[in-house]
Amino acid sequence: MPELEFHFDFLSPYGYFASLSVEEIAARHNRVVSWCPMLLGVTVMKVMGLKPLPETPLKGPYVLRDVARTARQLKLQIGRDLKKPPSNSLVPARALCWAKVHSPEAVPGLARAFYSAIWARGVDIDKPEDLATVPLPREIAAPELIAAAKGQEAASLLRGSVEESIKKGVFGSPTFIVDGETFWGFDHLGQVDEWLATGGW
Amino acid sequence: MPELEFHFDFLSPYGYFASLSVEEIAARHNRVVSWCPMLLGVTVMKVMGLKPLPETPLKGPYVLRDVARTARQLKLQIGRDLKKPPSNSLVPARALCWAKVHSPEAVPGLARAFYSAIWARGVDIDKPEDLATVPLPREIAAPELIAAAKGQEAASLLRGSVEESIKKGVFGSPTFIVDGETFWGFDHLGQVDEWLATGGW
Repeated sequence: MPELEFHFDFLSPYGYFASLSVEEIAARHNRVVSWCPMLLGVTVMKVMGLKPLPETPLKGPYVLRDVARTARQLKLQIGRDLKKPPSNSLVPARALCWAKVHSPEAVPGLARAFYSAIWARGVDIDKPEDLATVPLPREIAAPELIAAAKGQEAASLLRGSVEESIKKGVFGSPTFIVDGETFWGFDHLGQVDEWLATGGW
Repeated sequence: MPELEFHFDFLSPYGYFASLSVEEIAARHNRVVSWCPMLLGVTVMKVMGLKPLPETPLKGPYVLRDVARTARQLKLQIGRDLKKPPSNSLVPARALCWAKVHSPEAVPGLARAFYSAIWARGVDIDKPEDLATVPLPREIAAPELIAAAKGQEAASLLRGSVEESIKKGVFGSPTFIVDGETFWGFDHLGQVDEWLATGGW
């Protein structure tokens, strides 16, 4: 099946929103979702040379309000103070990259479990041991995942994934790519759906 | 009638897209559009401390593609090379601010005429004399508008309008404000419509 590439950072609440419907949209068009973790810290700060969004005047405060408003519209509870985003997403991103190789069928469930922990329940997943607090898909055991998140393989897989995203021009979370066409932003997920339904324009 | 504030820069193709439907959406909800020119150069560079969008790695090239794709979706012809955006929007922005005071009934037609000249026909409106090339609403004569665009009053009105936008947290074009609720981006115009239809959430 052709892919719907879903590039996202676990730090990104808009990525969380998209994670809840991307599988359904892909399935409707006989696409398989490729879950591609990226790191906003690398793209935004290092590649684009911008400051982090929360520190950007005018836009930072707007985004806080927009995230809360979007969550209300989607009838989602956000389980954390939006002003205290998770400090980094290296651990879940590495764990997911490892799972893509070693337990691919568990990837969508694992990604949603991480997102739900971070944004719906407000749990921080900063250290490999924190992975034990997440309800994992049955294909994956916590000790195995914790060991993987500490290892070189997962770190190297994530570096490759981030480089690949940047090479494809991905700069924000979420970004969707179908047949080489790139759509940035949760607000564009409807447009992706329309693109797939119509074959593009 | 309560307002739907529409903040935009004539430099912004997304502002152009919004300008084509904002009056219809406002009318559907018994709102009157307040056309508020702002200057991205001031908000983005001076207030936010960011580089101009076209010079931003990854995002700059993406936006060019997204604008072209959005235009195709809306069945709009863009009459200029997107890589050569208008150099600045001071003249049409000043002229519009002047019209808001001296010929308010002409404002929607004038704003759309400027947008259409710049984006549909690819005409530059950099100098006050360029205003003579724009088909103006019948309430306004070209010589009068040219003189106004050269004058202190229009410059001062625009400065006030830009300051007011920034005070309200506006940072991008287009931005919509209804009853103190701010929505950024052409992609959010549908959400504004829904907000007005439902009374918000």
